[in-house]
Amino acid sequence: MKSDLTISQEAQLQPIATIADAAGIAAEELIPYGDAKAKVKFSLLKRLDNAKRGKLVLVTAITPTPFGEGKTVTTIGLSQGLKTIGQNVMACIRQPSMGPVFGVKGGAAGGGYSQVAPMEELNLHLTGDIHAVSAAHNLAAAAIDARLFHEQKQGDNFEAKTGMANLQIDPKRIVWGRVVDMNDRTLRRVTIGINREGSTANGIERESGFDITAASELMAILALSKDLKDLRQRVGRCVLAYSIDGKPVTAEDIGVAGAMAAILRDAAQPTLMQTLEGVPTLVHAGPFANIAHGNSSIIADRMALRLADVVVTEGGFGSDMGFEKACNIKARAADKTPDAAVVVATLRGLKANSGKYDLRPGQALPEAIFAPDTEALEAGFANLQWHIENVKRYGIPAVVAINRFPQDTDEELNWLRDQVAALGAEVAISEAFGKGGEGAAELAEKVMSALQTPADFQFLYDVEQGIEAKLTQIARDGYSGDGIELSDDARAEMEKLEALGFGNLPVCMAKSPASISHDPALKGAPSGFTVPVRGLRLCAGAGFIYALTGNVMTMPGLSDKPGYLSIDIDEDGNITGIDE
Amino acid sequence: MKSDLTISQEAQLQPIATIADAAGIAAEELIPYGDAKAKVKFSLLKRLDNAKRGKLVLVTAITPTPFGEGKTVTTIGLSQGLKTIGQNVMACIRQPSMGPVFGVKGGAAGGGYSQVAPMEELNLHLTGDIHAVSAAHNLAAAAIDARLFHEQKQGDNFEAKTGMANLQIDPKRIVWGRVVDMNDRTLRRVTIGINREGSTANGIERESGFDITAASELMAILALSKDLKDLRQRVGRCVLAYSIDGKPVTAEDIGVAGAMAAILRDAAQPTLMQTLEGVPTLVHAGPFANIAHGNSSIIADRMALRLADVVVTEGGFGSDMGFEKACNIKARAADKTPDAAVVVATLRGLKANSGKYDLRPGQALPEAIFAPDTEALEAGFANLQWHIENVKRYGIPAVVAINRFPQDTDEELNWLRDQVAALGAEVAISEAFGKGGEGAAELAEKVMSALQTPADFQFLYDVEQGIEAKLTQIARDGYSGDGIELSDDARAEMEKLEALGFGNLPVCMAKSPASISHDPALKGAPSGFTVPVRGLRLCAGAGFIYALTGNVMTMPGLSDKPGYLSIDIDEDGNITGIDE
Repeated sequence: MKSDLTISQEAQLQPIATIADAAGIAAEELIPYGDAKAKVKFSLLKRLDNAKRGKLVLVTAITPTPFGEGKTVTTIGLSQGLKTIGQNVMACIRQPSMGPVFGVKGGAAGGGYSQVAPMEELNLHLTGDIHAVSAAHNLAAAAIDARLFHEQKQGDNFEAKTGMANLQIDPKRIVWGRVVDMNDRTLRRVTIGINREGSTANGIERESGFDITAASELMAILALSKDLKDLRQRVGRCVLAYSIDGKPVTAEDIGVAGAMAAILRDAAQPTLMQTLEGVPTLVHAGPFANIAHGNSSIIADRMALRLADVVVTEGGFGSDMGFEKACNIKARAADKTPDAAVVVATLRGLKANSGKYDLRPGQALPEAIFAPDTEALEAGFANLQWHIENVKRYGIPAVVAINRFPQDTDEELNWLRDQVAALGAEVAISEAFGKGGEGAAELAEKVMSALQTPADFQFLYDVEQGIEAKLTQIARDGYSGDGIELSDDARAEMEKLEALGFGNLPVCMAKSPASISHDPALKGAPSGFTVPVRGLRLCAGAGFIYALTGNVMTMPGLSDKPGYLSIDIDEDGNITGIDE
Repeated sequence: MKSDLTISQEAQLQPIATIADAAGIAAEELIPYGDAKAKVKFSLLKRLDNAKRGKLVLVTAITPTPFGEGKTVTTIGLSQGLKTIGQNVMACIRQPSMGPVFGVKGGAAGGGYSQVAPMEELNLHLTGDIHAVSAAHNLAAAAIDARLFHEQKQGDNFEAKTGMANLQIDPKRIVWGRVVDMNDRTLRRVTIGINREGSTANGIERESGFDITAASELMAILALSKDLKDLRQRVGRCVLAYSIDGKPVTAEDIGVAGAMAAILRDAAQPTLMQTLEGVPTLVHAGPFANIAHGNSSIIADRMALRLADVVVTEGGFGSDMGFEKACNIKARAADKTPDAAVVVATLRGLKANSGKYDLRPGQALPEAIFAPDTEALEAGFANLQWHIENVKRYGIPAVVAINRFPQDTDEELNWLRDQVAALGAEVAISEAFGKGGEGAAELAEKVMSALQTPADFQFLYDVEQGIEAKLTQIARDGYSGDGIELSDDARAEMEKLEALGFGNLPVCMAKSPASISHDPALKGAPSGFTVPVRGLRLCAGAGFIYALTGNVMTMPGLSDKPGYLSIDIDEDGNITGIDE
């Protein structure tokens, strides 16, 4: 089979204005960025305010291997399958971060014949949204350090000289780091503001760190805002630091929120692209699925739901991760809950869930995992069963998509399909990668069938209860564990946050995606575990508190054979090797 | 008079496709980014390869105050003036950095009725070029630190495991820092790669620093490349570090140059905008005018010179700075020398050159400087005289543009005009700020008159002589000083660079723009000084060596009342306060 990049570059794409027109977007609502991508203006939301609302299909997965189980392929493939069977459909996906594009091999546009195209543009700058998030984030970082510097330097004269309050920023409690959209491990922990002997020209020395931009709270805000007004207010609520006496210092407090929002203005508009088969696709935001909620944007969903009858989107990792956050964080902010869910399963992923294989990111997948192995498949099946039940717990109908790999045998695929059917769930084998929409037509039929049954959506928890109760409910009902254990630090932080009035925010669990539990070693459908909560962090702008349940990586590193080695351009600007 | 932003927002702009069409750019050579800006494809250069070459007019200035003397206003105004008198004209300007937009008050799109519009878009992301430079730069930084990390960690096994050479990178001689397009003083000097006790997960600890993106060597490369092939090769030649035994380690050596060029691909295409009066303007690159050459790009000039009869561009600061580098660095790389120069002078700037005022960036300009003061004006006139002679030294005809401020009196303006005329130079009072092209029509006539005399261009120095001889020639013939004094460090570095084969590169002087000499205290037309050269730095990709003659600021800081305080958006996305 051809490479992803070759398939993408050979595709006969339609002009984006044609795609937009067919989707019902007016010419004056479109800001073209060349022929293949365009921003969609907010005016569309005003024009279609009272228009129909389509059905929202959320694609999730079993507990994935480090290589992913083809959730984006299935999302794009399903949208093409729905088009194939005559539905008016749109897809909404996240924008890939450039860091991993140059770090690990392969882009993030789907793959095979189920891709968003052109994949080079999707994987590089696109329309600049991630750059805008980095710039707005780093402006706030520069601003808080500059304010600290001038307050300390001018002391009692600060208020008189500037006409602004001396906020008494505590240099030990600046909680806003810096970001860069690269995999750069040496920036995880840094000392900034180092001066030559006797000088203070370089500011106040302190320890800080850089995250990858996908981990920025502003990226979560971009994804969770309903409109520009909401975005502007959320940016203003971001807590950058605390004062000496423990008061939060927000972006609004230091007067930088307006400029941050100005930087984010264009980024707040989703980017319209197309799949290889011409399904209009909104690409917008790319928040991490651990310290943030791992879903594409509410603004994109709102637009798509006004234009299409069916909208397919996805949540990061398994249904304990991005799906849980889509339901408990995104759906609350959006005032729109999913109508159906697709659980992507693979033979290799279920075999990995047997615990028989020690898979690690950066190392090749063992070929043995593709060989027939009924025992491993049966053992790992418990994981799929758990995810189906988890989806149903929210009152949402579940459809299982078995994502076929070339090495898979019909025998094992059929066995798996029959097992799922025996549970009473809708199921289809998807050949979206190899065959595009045709390969996902059966899946599309099953999804349409599931949508006949109206969802009876239920949140997992009531936000108005205390933080500890919410954490406990997620650990029990969200993960099938026994409960939580709060560290002393986490308890102290919890008490502070509740005293400051942030106790009623939803909770975003930062945990390993490699297990339903907090412990990556616990495969399948674990039980009897207690989730340790080591710390709590406030994202007042995004509107959640995240709970650390392990070592959470917010800045990847480059391996010894990074993806960038194969990437180049020729003298006409053609890019090669981005999919290798 | 209305504010710059109001004038810009009220302007009736033409669709950028209309501007392009009128300029002779074919529809298929244009990549629109909305209605107001568009990238111009390289294919234009192929189609018009044998077309006419227009005349290149380079706008420079007297030794400026920290507030600038209106060089961009004059550049844009002159282009409008040329259009007013019926010329087929284009302008080429640099893209403003976002750092100063949020740092000091006011944008950089020209001003008054001589602006490039829309000014919000020019001053914020435009088409993402500066973001692309940041990303490519920081990818190289992450790559060199990752290579160091893996080489040290794997030691003798590195070559066998990766199939790549162990380059023995010297952690003390990594010369490639990181960049961010913000004013962030605390990043000037940092320690990176800090690990928890007993861990090496965060890489190798070392001291490093961040520059603002305009100071990136890649920004200079973007401005100095002739085409994509040239850009790709220059990126590969960038020296990131030295090995333990002193060999340069380039971006090509570590295999990151192709990916860097892929990131820069779109940025290599200039952005077409328009002035308030519809003059097509190419905005491209924004290298610093001290550690880099401070001029917009060769690619933009090449395009404009094939399309228009007259092309107006500018070099940063006075004629000892951006103009000198335009002649000795840019013109060599471009194979195109300027046909005429405009020297911008202001009453306030000449009075400041009397030495009577102590002007500092970040402090308000004293109103007294606008009051009639013949003595100060006469004293400062020597500075203008020097710059006129300096331009003529290169064999280029000089036209003086007296940029009128609202407070200026006719009496002083006329006195200055007569003094210049008495020197035999063309001169006009420009009211481009207040009156647009009409206000610069006389200046335009004078420029056309100067272009009647073919320039007899001469470089200041021969690149093939040694570094010390080139430095001496710039100090003597370029600044009217007595010569140079090399520090021990600079001499040692010079010997190393010549031994490595880099002795034949042109030299880029990093010096104060506040004096023709190296010493900002020496106003007017100083003489009898010796320029101290404290250090030399190699930019093998950009193709020059820069010489440090003082403390050169490569990362600004935010003041206690930074520009961002006044910036905001409303719920429809209208940006306010960017010009305050």
